Amino acid sequence: MPAPMTGSALRPGEVAAPAGLVRPGDAALAFIGHLRTPWRQGDCPRSLRLARGRGGGAAVELLPGLAPALTGLAPGQWLMLLYWLGEGRRDLLLQAPGHAEGPVGTFALRSPVRPNPIGLSRVRLVAIEGSVLRVRGLDCLDGTPLLDIKPDLCAFKPKAAPKD
Amino acid sequence: MPAPMTGSALRPGEVAAPAGLVRPGDAALAFIGHLRTPWRQGDCPRSLRLARGRGGGAAVELLPGLAPALTGLAPGQWLMLLYWLGEGRRDLLLQAPGHAEGPVGTFALRSPVRPNPIGLSRVRLVAIEGSVLRVRGLDCLDGTPLLDIKPDLCAFKPKAAPKD
Repeated sequence: MPAPMTGSALRPGEVAAPAGLVRPGDAALAFIGHLRTPWRQGDCPRSLRLARGRGGGAAVELLPGLAPALTGLAPGQWLMLLYWLGEGRRDLLLQAPGHAEGPVGTFALRSPVRPNPIGLSRVRLVAIEGSVLRVRGLDCLDGTPLLDIKPDLCAFKPKAAPKD
Repeated sequence: MPAPMTGSALRPGEVAAPAGLVRPGDAALAFIGHLRTPWRQGDCPRSLRLARGRGGGAAVELLPGLAPALTGLAPGQWLMLLYWLGEGRRDLLLQAPGHAEGPVGTFALRSPVRPNPIGLSRVRLVAIEGSVLRVRGLDCLDGTPLLDIKPDLCAFKPKAAPKD
């Protein structure tokens, strides 16, 4: 059983999974580019709303060889970005973030501390320059590895539940 | 350079990336459960809308040891599910799906054929039974590995672009 990737102590109320339950190795990811933002460790805003309020454009730098896969995207569109949120511990079940009153389940949070630290954001595409996408603000660190770009999911779903 | 995972020939107009450009191995995923649907290979509906039209509930079977991480979720909520869409080829840049008139870029499609075959769906949570979530219809195969459960992203974003 591999040791969980730790490096941070538990706060009061936080609960970790039994050792060995979350075992990375079932499937492998390829980084296909990086996100460029104004944020370095320490000054990274806690939300997309804050990031936009503080200004600063953001960009998606795709590996240049993958640029043909952008065919069909157009400025003004909304996109879903999937990216890799690094190597924090992956075994926390209950977390006690500063903004919550008590411990909350990992799957009810957007925290990067989760079994598979995949970040998900919905952004507006501003411009395409070769293999670089200019987008509205992102709340992740400069250099965050890119995993995927998808068409907008939200536009296809009504906010009210369909009668199905 | 590892050979791309192929197994399917290119259709007219389709374009693959240069060999070795998409190299899985940058990060590792842990499967944290499975999706249960009525769909086996061959009868899987092509969209969430079709899946719902054909009825059949769906479930998210989380590894039982991870159940505490569901704390804070409640029936009626919308969730984002991330799951792993298997081992098709990962190097296609332009694809020619049957429903499109010509080749389209991979990042403008929801196709599972992409550098990192992560599926993303927004579903309504119907009930929580221990480590099992009952949800509205899903359009993926029974047994699809689960990667993550996140709070709804769409509800936080206005459909019209904010003036930022």
